[in-house]
Amino acid sequence: MVAANQIPTTADVAPTHPARESAAPVAGDRAADVVTDVIVVGGGGGGLPTALFSRWLGNEVVLLEKAPELGGTAKKAAFWYWVPNNVPMRALGLSDEEPDFLRYVARLARPTAYDPTSPTLGLSQWEYGMCRAIYDSASPAAELLAEKGALEYRHCPDVVDYWSEIPEDKAPTGRVLVPRDARDTMSDGGAVGVASMAAAAERDGVDVRLGHRVQRLVLRHGAIVGVEATTQDGRTHRIAARKAVIFATGGFTHDVDLRRNFLHTPVFGGCAALTNEGDFLAIAGPVGAQLRNMNYAWMCPVPLERAVARDSRLSGMFSVAGDSTVFVDKTGRRVVNEKLQYNELAQKFFTYDGDTGEYPYLVLVQIWDQRSQDHSASDEYGRQIVPAGTDDGHVIRGETLEALAAAVADRLSRYAHVTGGLTLDPNFVPNLQQTIDRFNGFAERGVDEDFHRGEKPVQLLFNGSVKDEPGRTNPTMWPISSSGPYYASLVTGGTLDTKGGPRTNTEAQVLDDTGQPIPGLYGVGNCVASASAQAYWAGGATLGPIIAFAHRAAQAADREPIREPRQLTPSPS
Amino acid sequence: MVAANQIPTTADVAPTHPARESAAPVAGDRAADVVTDVIVVGGGGGGLPTALFSRWLGNEVVLLEKAPELGGTAKKAAFWYWVPNNVPMRALGLSDEEPDFLRYVARLARPTAYDPTSPTLGLSQWEYGMCRAIYDSASPAAELLAEKGALEYRHCPDVVDYWSEIPEDKAPTGRVLVPRDARDTMSDGGAVGVASMAAAAERDGVDVRLGHRVQRLVLRHGAIVGVEATTQDGRTHRIAARKAVIFATGGFTHDVDLRRNFLHTPVFGGCAALTNEGDFLAIAGPVGAQLRNMNYAWMCPVPLERAVARDSRLSGMFSVAGDSTVFVDKTGRRVVNEKLQYNELAQKFFTYDGDTGEYPYLVLVQIWDQRSQDHSASDEYGRQIVPAGTDDGHVIRGETLEALAAAVADRLSRYAHVTGGLTLDPNFVPNLQQTIDRFNGFAERGVDEDFHRGEKPVQLLFNGSVKDEPGRTNPTMWPISSSGPYYASLVTGGTLDTKGGPRTNTEAQVLDDTGQPIPGLYGVGNCVASASAQAYWAGGATLGPIIAFAHRAAQAADREPIREPRQLTPSPS
Repeated sequence: MVAANQIPTTADVAPTHPARESAAPVAGDRAADVVTDVIVVGGGGGGLPTALFSRWLGNEVVLLEKAPELGGTAKKAAFWYWVPNNVPMRALGLSDEEPDFLRYVARLARPTAYDPTSPTLGLSQWEYGMCRAIYDSASPAAELLAEKGALEYRHCPDVVDYWSEIPEDKAPTGRVLVPRDARDTMSDGGAVGVASMAAAAERDGVDVRLGHRVQRLVLRHGAIVGVEATTQDGRTHRIAARKAVIFATGGFTHDVDLRRNFLHTPVFGGCAALTNEGDFLAIAGPVGAQLRNMNYAWMCPVPLERAVARDSRLSGMFSVAGDSTVFVDKTGRRVVNEKLQYNELAQKFFTYDGDTGEYPYLVLVQIWDQRSQDHSASDEYGRQIVPAGTDDGHVIRGETLEALAAAVADRLSRYAHVTGGLTLDPNFVPNLQQTIDRFNGFAERGVDEDFHRGEKPVQLLFNGSVKDEPGRTNPTMWPISSSGPYYASLVTGGTLDTKGGPRTNTEAQVLDDTGQPIPGLYGVGNCVASASAQAYWAGGATLGPIIAFAHRAAQAADREPIREPRQLTPSPS
Repeated sequence: MVAANQIPTTADVAPTHPARESAAPVAGDRAADVVTDVIVVGGGGGGLPTALFSRWLGNEVVLLEKAPELGGTAKKAAFWYWVPNNVPMRALGLSDEEPDFLRYVARLARPTAYDPTSPTLGLSQWEYGMCRAIYDSASPAAELLAEKGALEYRHCPDVVDYWSEIPEDKAPTGRVLVPRDARDTMSDGGAVGVASMAAAAERDGVDVRLGHRVQRLVLRHGAIVGVEATTQDGRTHRIAARKAVIFATGGFTHDVDLRRNFLHTPVFGGCAALTNEGDFLAIAGPVGAQLRNMNYAWMCPVPLERAVARDSRLSGMFSVAGDSTVFVDKTGRRVVNEKLQYNELAQKFFTYDGDTGEYPYLVLVQIWDQRSQDHSASDEYGRQIVPAGTDDGHVIRGETLEALAAAVADRLSRYAHVTGGLTLDPNFVPNLQQTIDRFNGFAERGVDEDFHRGEKPVQLLFNGSVKDEPGRTNPTMWPISSSGPYYASLVTGGTLDTKGGPRTNTEAQVLDDTGQPIPGLYGVGNCVASASAQAYWAGGATLGPIIAFAHRAAQAADREPIREPRQLTPSPS
């Protein structure tokens, strides 16, 4: 057990990578230290497949990773990847036609603009084109990764989309793949997938350079012809690219200033790799890149304390496990369906009260009893109910509701400086008792009249383990015990990572303000704008499209003209 | 009377200014058509005072305005300006100390980060410094404009801040000034203020050029030395600046793509001048400017139909007038205090329902009876209850609630393509009747138990005219009649204008990614990042700070070194 005050603070986290320098581009008239065909920046879930696809097309590839190891955010993830119309679906006879797919993604990406009668379904022409590219390329990309042994998969025929119940979803199951050798719960998919792709990169001759922070672009005659990267020893390395530089550096989850100034909600960090600091925004701006979808993020609930500590071990709460458990607000009242899919659940914390000028649900308190502790504990998927012997510094205990409330109030007081001074209401305990009484009635009948908990398939997908209760119709609910001990944890909203950055075309080329490609510059993954807008379509809606665009980027970069290689020879050493 | 189907559509709006071209900066090695000391781009509430302040310091000033007339958004506004610690306040003995001012603005700008024990109160160092600059400079700037006869003011000692009730507001009244010759209701302040500043500009020799759209910067040795602008005749004009180029071009309210990709809510346009298309974002990006506060806007409810039509006459609904009136949602239920200050009321339309993936309050229906029609009609401040003989195309009528609901449903159906298919609930009429019954009970007792209508001073400030009812304690409510006719209007959320853009320092210099000024480039007003973050502190919290930074920009630009004027002489003509 780790006490809460042992959770590291931001100041305790030693930097593991070089500091940021000026991102102003430099002229390409100096000789490079290294010359290659394609530079891939970032070695996570976007960069590794991009490098592999480029290499398999016969290119020399240098991969530059800021961290001391490969993997980025993907390594922490379950690495589900959402692949429309994939090969195993077709083998099973599951239909997934493009027009249906496009209606599903458009309806969720832009709910207020969705128009089934519009040629682009209410999306912008750009978004529509990008969604078509996902449909076309995710499956071929996944197949190629599998054929080459870089990322073999197993199909999850029964895993549902996150909005499987809406009429626009004509393929509610079958789009999710996971790394073949992931465990049954799939939670270690990222470690498995990163390991196999890294092994393939080594096997196939990708030149991987760790601890290299790309600081700026090298520009000649309006084209990107390389990068400058720095290492912890203070050196600046110029790497030249004959064909292209492809960024796959992740979003800006860990830059508080960018978060506050772009995102639609005041989130508390998230579970992206700590190296996701928005580097590409500063680097791409001065060469004319235009930004899109800067307001939205892949969101999830996060434990308040680890988020504030900027703990590298933070996991998003992808599954709120347990049946005898509720979330309550500072007044002791339920305000949300605790089993909503994580992206939607995370929005609730940022409900704004225009009467008081406050965010009354900024921190919610998950409360559970001994039953859920005994039967639903797990250290996977960011669950707050964790097994004995694991790190439980976030768990607050009380023998009675009164004692629990006092301990929660005490814990909250440590975070007043980052919550706008949020405290428990004086009536918290009586309200909580009423809340539990009402919830228990719902649980006995299996029907949540307030928030409809457990009514949709996705809510069962993430219910986690619960004590078996024969005959029960709704496994997401069970009455909370009338006697202690009770447990609690402070929960708020965060990001897996952000969704905004330079706008790219369907070939992953970064576009300028007139929509023209900036020659030689590409982007893939969370460092560039996602056409998903506000939607989280399904599990793996992050990595499926990323792999699709990795494939398209590599193909387009391969077709680039060679840019004056004679000026790019390495300097004599 | 104008029928609703006569409201112009976007396609009908003829362009009044040159089209956008590439914003890529050009080299400064070609001779200019015109040379001046300071170029001011934009002739609205930011550009006019900036030009005047620069001119009064002895500079040659060219002002370039895209539209065929001066005024921009300010001309449409009431032109309140919020000036902390202003001279009339001091004369009245109203105290407004800087530490109190800073706590008030910080509490509202960043509610979740506010920390009274922090040296910057939870703001970023940049935000804190900008707020101090507002406190220091708004009053001297206002005084200078008045002394010079460009913008004489009258003090509004009784007008309250928008959050006058919170403990951080130690100067709840007295910070608002309006143009001296505005009418009693102050609604024509913008026309008055723009006219007097434009007259001063002509009197004092500012070289005003209308119909000039600035397309890009002229760059030499890393410094901004001029701009290129185009005119409707297809010509490109190069104007050189010996000292500085100061942008004051407004926000991006009228660029739907920028709105969707940056703002925290999916708003429907707004009441900014139609020329506010975010030009400075494309122009400043390629010279390395970093963007801030791109997520927030000055918000207000707007009439749905005019917003969709992109009608240049659109006014934000700054005052929801009437007592026998309510807003209801598509189910016929009240969901908000209709008298909330406009920026806060506008947030409500964008409440997201994570269970259904919809924005259930995207369009609310204002409903009123003959009493409010007879006693609260006004064409000022964007009120929807308008007098006979004025443009009432937005008004929907019905002799009974059933007839009204049918007419509302019909009107809504015309907008299904821009509301995600929003329709009235089948139970709208019975729910509406229940809503009216409940509201009428509150109105009789003067207490709104659901939403607290009329409980705060700011809600009385914007109540508008209502029929006098001796002895009434809450003038914001009166029972809605049990007999028709009834009236309705479709309401949604929009912007006055947006708040984001390049980050500037306290001298209004645009900053690069390392926080260093880009030599010669300045920005003022809604085209650059506002340190107000999400807050709308008070009426005039737009123009007060803008005037402060106009003053600071002009002073700093005046101190700039002359940049190689021999290369900037006009070409022989």
